[in-house]
Amino acid sequence: MSNEALRNAIHQADQAINCRDFDRLMNFYAEDAMLVIAPERYAKGKTQIRKAFDAISGYFNDSLEVEQGNMIFFEMGDIALVLAKTFVRASGKPDSQFSSERDSTYVYRKAPSGQWLCVIDNSYGTALLNQACA
Amino acid sequence: MSNEALRNAIHQADQAINCRDFDRLMNFYAEDAMLVIAPERYAKGKTQIRKAFDAISGYFNDSLEVEQGNMIFFEMGDIALVLAKTFVRASGKPDSQFSSERDSTYVYRKAPSGQWLCVIDNSYGTALLNQACA
Repeated sequence: MSNEALRNAIHQADQAINCRDFDRLMNFYAEDAMLVIAPERYAKGKTQIRKAFDAISGYFNDSLEVEQGNMIFFEMGDIALVLAKTFVRASGKPDSQFSSERDSTYVYRKAPSGQWLCVIDNSYGTALLNQACA
Repeated sequence: MSNEALRNAIHQADQAINCRDFDRLMNFYAEDAMLVIAPERYAKGKTQIRKAFDAISGYFNDSLEVEQGNMIFFEMGDIALVLAKTFVRASGKPDSQFSSERDSTYVYRKAPSGQWLCVIDNSYGTALLNQACA
Protein backbone atom coordinates (compact mmCIF):
# COMPACT_ATOMS: atom_id res chain seq x y z
CA MET A 1 0.00 0.00 0.00
CA SER A 2 2.92 2.35 0.57
CA ASN A 3 3.35 2.50 -3.20
CA GLU A 4 0.00 4.24 -3.23
CA ALA A 5 1.37 7.19 -1.24
CA LEU A 6 4.20 7.57 -3.73
CA ARG A 7 1.92 7.16 -6.73
CA ASN A 8 -0.43 9.74 -5.25
CA ALA A 9 2.40 12.24 -4.66
CA ILE A 10 3.47 11.92 -8.30
CA HIS A 11 -0.11 12.26 -9.53
CA GLN A 12 -0.68 15.38 -7.43
CA ALA A 13 2.57 16.91 -8.70
CA ASP A 14 1.46 16.26 -12.29
CA GLN A 15 -1.89 17.88 -11.56
CA ALA A 16 -0.13 20.96 -10.17
CA ILE A 17 1.96 21.17 -13.37
CA ASN A 18 -1.10 20.76 -15.54
CA CYS A 19 -2.88 23.56 -13.60
CA ARG A 20 0.27 25.69 -13.82
CA ASP A 21 0.20 25.95 -10.02
CA PHE A 22 3.97 25.87 -9.54
CA ASP A 23 3.80 27.13 -5.96
CA ARG A 24 1.79 24.04 -5.06
CA LEU A 25 4.13 21.91 -7.15
CA MET A 26 7.04 22.92 -4.90
CA ASN A 27 5.37 21.04 -2.01
CA PHE A 28 6.40 17.80 -3.69
CA TYR A 29 10.13 18.58 -3.89
CA ALA A 30 12.76 18.26 -1.18
CA GLU A 31 14.63 21.48 -0.32
CA ASP A 32 17.81 20.09 -1.90
CA ALA A 33 16.05 18.54 -4.90
CA MET A 34 17.39 18.57 -8.43
CA LEU A 35 15.53 18.79 -11.72
CA VAL A 36 17.05 17.79 -15.05
CA ILE A 37 15.67 20.57 -17.27
CA ALA A 38 17.34 19.24 -20.40
CA PRO A 39 20.47 17.16 -21.02
CA GLU A 40 23.30 18.84 -19.08
CA ARG A 41 20.96 21.56 -17.77
CA TYR A 42 20.03 21.24 -14.14
CA ALA A 43 18.06 23.22 -11.56
CA LYS A 44 19.18 22.68 -7.96
CA GLY A 45 17.09 23.61 -4.95
CA LYS A 46 13.49 24.81 -4.83
CA THR A 47 14.22 28.37 -5.93
CA GLN A 48 15.92 27.26 -9.14
CA ILE A 49 13.33 24.54 -9.77
CA ARG A 50 10.47 27.03 -9.34
CA LYS A 51 12.11 29.37 -11.88
CA ALA A 52 12.79 26.48 -14.23
CA PHE A 53 9.10 25.53 -14.28
CA ASP A 54 8.17 29.11 -15.18
CA ALA A 55 10.64 28.94 -18.07
CA ILE A 56 9.53 25.45 -19.14
CA SER A 57 5.91 26.53 -19.04
CA GLY A 58 6.76 29.58 -21.14
CA TYR A 59 8.61 27.42 -23.67
CA PHE A 60 5.49 25.30 -24.08
CA ASN A 61 3.28 28.43 -24.38
CA ASP A 62 1.61 27.54 -21.07
CA SER A 63 0.09 24.41 -22.57
CA LEU A 64 2.28 21.75 -20.92
CA GLU A 65 0.49 18.64 -19.72
CA VAL A 66 2.31 15.78 -18.01
CA GLU A 67 0.94 12.31 -17.33
CA GLN A 68 2.57 9.10 -16.12
CA GLY A 69 1.77 5.77 -17.73
CA ASN A 70 3.24 2.51 -16.49
CA MET A 71 5.29 2.99 -13.32
CA ILE A 72 7.62 0.65 -11.43
CA PHE A 73 8.33 1.41 -7.78
CA PHE A 74 11.39 0.34 -5.83
CA GLU A 75 10.81 1.41 -2.24
CA MET A 76 13.62 0.66 0.19
CA GLY A 77 12.94 2.23 3.57
CA ASP A 78 12.90 5.99 3.17
CA ILE A 79 14.30 5.96 -0.38
CA ALA A 80 12.47 5.09 -3.57
CA LEU A 81 13.40 4.84 -7.22
CA VAL A 82 10.48 5.25 -9.59
CA LEU A 83 10.71 4.28 -13.25
CA ALA A 84 7.89 5.85 -15.23
CA LYS A 85 6.61 6.06 -18.76
CA THR A 86 5.98 9.79 -18.97
CA PHE A 87 3.82 11.50 -21.56
CA VAL A 88 4.45 15.18 -22.23
CA ARG A 89 1.89 17.04 -24.29
CA ALA A 90 1.77 20.69 -25.28
CA SER A 91 -1.00 21.60 -27.71
CA GLY A 92 0.30 25.15 -27.86
CA LYS A 93 3.82 24.09 -28.86
CA PRO A 94 3.56 21.74 -31.85
CA ASP A 95 7.20 22.37 -32.84
CA SER A 96 8.77 21.32 -29.52
CA GLN A 97 12.22 19.77 -29.84
CA PHE A 98 11.63 17.58 -26.78
CA SER A 99 10.28 14.09 -26.99
CA SER A 100 6.68 13.58 -25.90
CA GLU A 101 7.24 10.09 -24.51
CA ARG A 102 9.98 9.51 -21.97
CA ASP A 103 11.26 6.76 -19.72
CA SER A 104 11.77 8.74 -16.52
CA THR A 105 13.77 8.07 -13.38
CA TYR A 106 12.61 9.76 -10.19
CA VAL A 107 14.26 9.40 -6.79
CA TYR A 108 12.11 10.12 -3.74
CA ARG A 109 12.95 10.42 -0.05
CA LYS A 110 10.39 10.00 2.71
CA ALA A 111 10.36 13.02 5.04
CA PRO A 112 10.04 12.54 8.82
CA SER A 113 6.40 13.62 8.33
CA GLY A 114 5.91 10.53 6.17
CA GLN A 115 5.48 12.55 2.97
CA TRP A 116 7.40 11.42 -0.11
CA LEU A 117 9.44 14.28 -1.59
CA CYS A 118 11.20 14.22 -4.94
CA VAL A 119 14.97 14.50 -4.63
CA ILE A 120 16.02 13.81 -8.23
CA ASP A 121 13.60 14.53 -11.06
CA ASN A 122 15.08 13.16 -14.28
CA SER A 123 12.44 12.71 -16.95
CA TYR A 124 15.17 11.92 -19.48
CA GLY A 125 16.06 8.69 -17.69
CA THR A 126 19.02 6.75 -19.01
CA ALA A 127 18.67 8.45 -22.41
CA LEU A 128 21.14 10.98 -20.94
CA LEU A 129 23.81 8.29 -21.38
CA ASN A 130 23.42 8.54 -25.12
CA GLN A 131 23.98 11.64 -27.19
CA ALA A 132 20.73 12.23 -29.01
CA CYS A 133 18.25 12.20 -26.18
CA ALA A 134 16.35 15.47 -26.65
CA MET B 1 35.46 15.32 -5.95
CA SER B 2 32.69 13.51 -4.07
CA ASN B 3 31.74 11.81 -7.34
CA GLU B 4 35.13 10.12 -7.11
CA ALA B 5 34.14 8.31 -3.91
CA LEU B 6 31.01 7.01 -5.60
CA ARG B 7 32.84 6.07 -8.78
CA ASN B 8 35.44 4.26 -6.72
CA ALA B 9 32.79 2.32 -4.75
CA ILE B 10 31.21 1.14 -8.01
CA HIS B 11 34.59 0.20 -9.46
CA GLN B 12 35.54 -1.78 -6.37
CA ALA B 13 32.20 -3.60 -6.41
CA ASP B 14 32.77 -4.52 -10.07
CA GLN B 15 36.24 -5.80 -9.21
CA ALA B 16 34.77 -7.97 -6.44
CA ILE B 17 32.27 -9.44 -8.94
CA ASN B 18 34.99 -10.05 -11.49
CA CYS B 19 37.10 -11.85 -8.83
CA ARG B 20 34.01 -13.79 -7.70
CA ASP B 21 34.61 -12.44 -4.19
CA PHE B 22 30.96 -12.06 -3.26
CA ASP B 23 31.67 -11.73 0.46
CA ARG B 24 33.70 -8.59 -0.30
CA LEU B 25 31.01 -7.46 -2.74
CA MET B 26 28.49 -7.35 0.10
CA ASN B 27 30.49 -4.51 1.70
CA PHE B 28 29.13 -2.23 -1.01
CA TYR B 29 25.45 -2.89 -0.35
CA ALA B 30 23.21 -1.40 2.34
CA GLU B 31 21.58 -3.91 4.70
CA ASP B 32 18.17 -3.19 3.16
CA ALA B 33 19.45 -3.09 -0.44
CA MET B 34 17.62 -4.54 -3.40
CA LEU B 35 19.00 -6.17 -6.53
CA VAL B 36 17.00 -6.58 -9.73
CA ILE B 37 18.13 -10.08 -10.76
CA ALA B 38 16.00 -10.10 -13.89
CA PRO B 39 12.75 -8.37 -14.87
CA GLU B 40 10.28 -9.00 -12.03
CA ARG B 41 12.85 -11.02 -10.07
CA TYR B 42 14.28 -9.24 -7.05
CA ALA B 43 16.65 -10.04 -4.20
CA LYS B 44 16.04 -8.02 -1.03
CA GLY B 45 18.55 -7.69 1.77
CA LYS B 46 22.16 -8.82 1.87
CA THR B 47 21.40 -12.51 2.47
CA GLN B 48 19.24 -12.78 -0.63
CA ILE B 49 21.62 -10.65 -2.70
CA ARG B 50 24.58 -12.83 -1.68
CA LYS B 51 22.68 -15.96 -2.76
CA ALA B 52 21.60 -14.28 -5.99
CA PHE B 53 25.20 -13.55 -6.94
CA ASP B 54 26.10 -17.20 -6.41
CA ALA B 55 23.25 -18.18 -8.72
CA ILE B 56 24.09 -15.48 -11.28
CA SER B 57 27.74 -16.53 -11.26
CA GLY B 58 26.68 -20.15 -11.76
CA TYR B 59 24.42 -19.19 -14.66
CA PHE B 60 27.39 -17.53 -16.35
CA ASN B 61 29.61 -20.56 -15.62
CA ASP B 62 31.72 -18.43 -13.25
CA SER B 63 32.92 -16.26 -16.12
CA LEU B 64 30.90 -13.09 -15.44
CA GLU B 65 32.75 -9.81 -15.90
CA VAL B 66 31.11 -6.45 -15.30
CA GLU B 67 32.46 -3.06 -16.33
CA GLN B 68 30.92 0.41 -16.35
CA GLY B 69 31.38 2.75 -19.27
CA ASN B 70 30.00 6.28 -19.31
CA MET B 71 28.43 7.24 -15.97
CA ILE B 72 26.32 10.21 -14.91
CA PHE B 73 26.15 11.05 -11.21
CA PHE B 74 23.36 12.93 -9.48
CA GLU B 75 24.47 13.44 -5.89
CA MET B 76 22.02 15.22 -3.62
CA GLY B 77 23.21 15.17 -0.03
CA ASP B 78 23.32 11.59 1.17
CA ILE B 79 21.44 10.18 -1.83
CA ALA B 80 22.76 9.59 -5.32
CA LEU B 81 21.32 8.32 -8.57
CA VAL B 82 23.89 6.89 -10.94
CA LEU B 83 23.13 6.25 -14.60
CA ALA B 84 25.68 3.92 -16.14
CA LYS B 85 26.45 2.23 -19.40
CA THR B 86 27.16 -1.27 -18.13
CA PHE B 87 28.97 -3.97 -20.06
CA VAL B 88 28.36 -7.57 -19.04
CA ARG B 89 30.67 -10.22 -20.50
CA ALA B 90 30.76 -13.95 -19.88
CA SER B 91 33.18 -15.87 -22.08
CA GLY B 92 31.96 -19.11 -20.53
CA LYS B 93 28.32 -18.45 -21.39
CA PRO B 94 28.09 -17.56 -25.09
CA ASP B 95 24.37 -18.41 -25.20
CA SER B 96 23.26 -16.05 -22.42
CA GLN B 97 19.75 -14.66 -22.88
CA PHE B 98 20.70 -11.44 -21.11
CA SER B 99 21.89 -8.37 -22.93
CA SER B 100 25.59 -7.57 -22.69
CA GLU B 101 25.14 -3.80 -22.80
CA ARG B 102 22.77 -2.14 -20.39
CA ASP B 103 21.72 1.34 -19.31
CA SER B 104 21.75 0.87 -15.55
CA THR B 105 20.19 2.85 -12.71
CA TYR B 106 21.83 2.60 -9.31
CA VAL B 107 20.67 4.39 -6.17
CA TYR B 108 23.25 4.93 -3.42
CA ARG B 109 22.97 6.21 0.13
CA LYS B 110 25.87 7.67 2.07
CA ALA B 111 26.32 5.90 5.40
CA PRO B 112 27.16 7.89 8.56
CA SER B 113 30.73 6.59 8.05
CA GLY B 114 30.81 8.49 4.75
CA GLN B 115 30.85 5.31 2.66
CA TRP B 116 28.48 5.11 -0.30
CA LEU B 117 26.32 1.96 -0.16
CA CYS B 118 24.12 0.66 -2.95
CA VAL B 119 20.43 0.67 -2.01
CA ILE B 120 18.86 -0.17 -5.38
CA ASP B 121 20.89 -2.07 -7.99
CA ASN B 122 18.93 -2.12 -11.23
CA SER B 123 21.15 -2.90 -14.19
CA TYR B 124 18.06 -3.14 -16.41
CA GLY B 125 17.32 0.57 -16.00
CA THR B 126 14.15 1.88 -17.58
CA ALA B 127 14.07 -1.09 -19.98
CA LEU B 128 11.92 -2.70 -17.27
CA LEU B 129 9.12 -0.36 -18.40
CA ASN B 130 8.99 -2.16 -21.70
CA GLN B 131 8.26 -5.83 -22.17
CA ALA B 132 11.23 -7.23 -24.05
CA CYS B 133 14.08 -6.05 -21.89
CA ALA B 134 16.03 -9.26 -21.27
